[in-house]
Amino acid sequence: MLISESALRSFTQNIFLSMGCSHEHAVLAADVLLLSDLRGIDSHGVARLVGYARLWEKKRINAKPNITIVHETLSTATVDGDAGLGLVVAPFAMQLAIKKAEQYGSGWVAVRNSNHFGIAGYHTLMAVERDMIGFAMTNASPLVAPTFSNERLLGTNPMCYAFPAGKYPPVVVDMATSAAANGKLEIAQRMGKQVPEGWIQNVQGNFTTDPHALKSGGALLPLGSDYDRGSHKGFGLSATVDILSAVLSGANYGPWVPPFVSFLEPPTDPVGLGIGHFVGAMRVDGFRPVDEFKNHLDNWIERFKSASTVNPDKKVIIPGEPELEAEKDRKINSIPLVDAVVSDLNGLADKFGITRL
Amino acid sequence: MLISESALRSFTQNIFLSMGCSHEHAVLAADVLLLSDLRGIDSHGVARLVGYARLWEKKRINAKPNITIVHETLSTATVDGDAGLGLVVAPFAMQLAIKKAEQYGSGWVAVRNSNHFGIAGYHTLMAVERDMIGFAMTNASPLVAPTFSNERLLGTNPMCYAFPAGKYPPVVVDMATSAAANGKLEIAQRMGKQVPEGWIQNVQGNFTTDPHALKSGGALLPLGSDYDRGSHKGFGLSATVDILSAVLSGANYGPWVPPFVSFLEPPTDPVGLGIGHFVGAMRVDGFRPVDEFKNHLDNWIERFKSASTVNPDKKVIIPGEPELEAEKDRKINSIPLVDAVVSDLNGLADKFGITRL
Repeated sequence: MLISESALRSFTQNIFLSMGCSHEHAVLAADVLLLSDLRGIDSHGVARLVGYARLWEKKRINAKPNITIVHETLSTATVDGDAGLGLVVAPFAMQLAIKKAEQYGSGWVAVRNSNHFGIAGYHTLMAVERDMIGFAMTNASPLVAPTFSNERLLGTNPMCYAFPAGKYPPVVVDMATSAAANGKLEIAQRMGKQVPEGWIQNVQGNFTTDPHALKSGGALLPLGSDYDRGSHKGFGLSATVDILSAVLSGANYGPWVPPFVSFLEPPTDPVGLGIGHFVGAMRVDGFRPVDEFKNHLDNWIERFKSASTVNPDKKVIIPGEPELEAEKDRKINSIPLVDAVVSDLNGLADKFGITRL
Repeated sequence: MLISESALRSFTQNIFLSMGCSHEHAVLAADVLLLSDLRGIDSHGVARLVGYARLWEKKRINAKPNITIVHETLSTATVDGDAGLGLVVAPFAMQLAIKKAEQYGSGWVAVRNSNHFGIAGYHTLMAVERDMIGFAMTNASPLVAPTFSNERLLGTNPMCYAFPAGKYPPVVVDMATSAAANGKLEIAQRMGKQVPEGWIQNVQGNFTTDPHALKSGGALLPLGSDYDRGSHKGFGLSATVDILSAVLSGANYGPWVPPFVSFLEPPTDPVGLGIGHFVGAMRVDGFRPVDEFKNHLDNWIERFKSASTVNPDKKVIIPGEPELEAEKDRKINSIPLVDAVVSDLNGLADKFGITRL
């Protein structure tokens, strides 16, 4: 099914309004999900709406959060999301980081008591629009085993860095710190395909190409896949995300992170509140004049785009470029939704008594 | 050859003094190199001394730099290293970041016109000693090809994050953003061994296990090794280091980064000054009380250390743990130096007319 941005946006806002979100929050949460669908990251857009709704039904998401600053210095803060949607809690935190950066050069905000925040890129682009460098990361439900372990102790814990360019689109490095994001695994599961070696291990700790191996005690692998190829580095990055997002903020970390899926209960011995994020913004002109930075970043982009290639069909991809291409296309040609997602969304519509897609 | 920390430290200080460094700078530069040797990172310690001396002879390193702050806000700054040793320029920048963090919660310093800064871990540990979280990264001579390219456009561009724990040693994630650091390749070259698939490609862009492939147009690979296993993420991380260290500071980036080896001339069309670093410090108590953070980080460490293992002989390694083990051992049992390094160092001693090792 192909659906226009505006129709999908209204539908999504209506779902959040039905959950009891304020108008402002419903508009914002829909904006975060829509950007994901527009940018081609289908796993993090409206496909998750049914997941948010189920967590709300279980009272694990608070539709009317009182988001507060619980600790603060001039350039740092900790925010408590009051169990709200990460889709509104993270933008609150990023707004605070941006305000601090405007006043003091940079702003850094750790967030506790939140939920899944959508794509990290949304939050960093808020900074980029103001000629700032944006940072965003979050921890997530445990699916990834540390190097040498067969226990799932870490989420796919994404980290994102975004930089404003001049005549080119921003450079947006937005990546899971596992070899493959869980969304990619889900696609292989749906299509009945095997996955490349290096994404997952089975319960014995051996590589497997079976995308269903997580169900039988397997685990996703950190970026690098195995020790020889540097999986301890992917583990180190994932650990960094976990510590900044949760140990620093007072959220749950490691195996205590509450699962996104509503059919799994959160651990009964939490070490903190909800899941955690960490966001930051730095004014480019806190370091050098903005036009100088943008001119050099344009030059950087041109040099890397024109790099000699191994295969003439595959050019070097500037981080953020494929997402922007998708966004341009989908704004004009609408957003494709797979049948399973349409059916989920119409089920939600029926439940809340709003118009189907 | 086994040599005590104090003997190697005096020797190293004398070399830097002979190059014309001030007493303060000679002591500091030696301290950075010694920590690397103590922590078992032999590729970044005194083994590099002859490299620094050669660059100094070619007037590419200034032994008496006038290091200055060229741009500043309350929580950010840019420093010009005046072509000094990165071993003294980076600590200057980190001191500034720490001072800003003490006053405003966090401090972030981009550095241009510098040289190789030793191990990133040294700089981040300066922050950790003051109950801060430390960040450090640097760009480096181009050896790594972006995903889909066969051109060497990026350095092994390390990034480091360090966190103070309570009863445990700090967590120090200090990693090249390539699948393998160049030092590991050099070890394989010296020992005549093949390297694992995924570290390097040949000029055609195919994996090779020949550690000498760089000499015939090959390249190191980003963390992830190939596109299927996420090498575009390693490329994205390396790009992040390059942009923060150099595009933001006004240093050279990408293929314009001047080579560390003196027999290769720097590009004749520089886009900036020297190489670049980026360092930062955030007060833990800018987010939550220090004892709370440390208690939870201790709990994090304990949980990950006790993770179930694939192989009972290989436990999960907390980032920074092996380096600390080496440091304990070498402080007592002295530092082993391979013959080639001893011979290089004694050659330097003869040149400068100081006592041999």
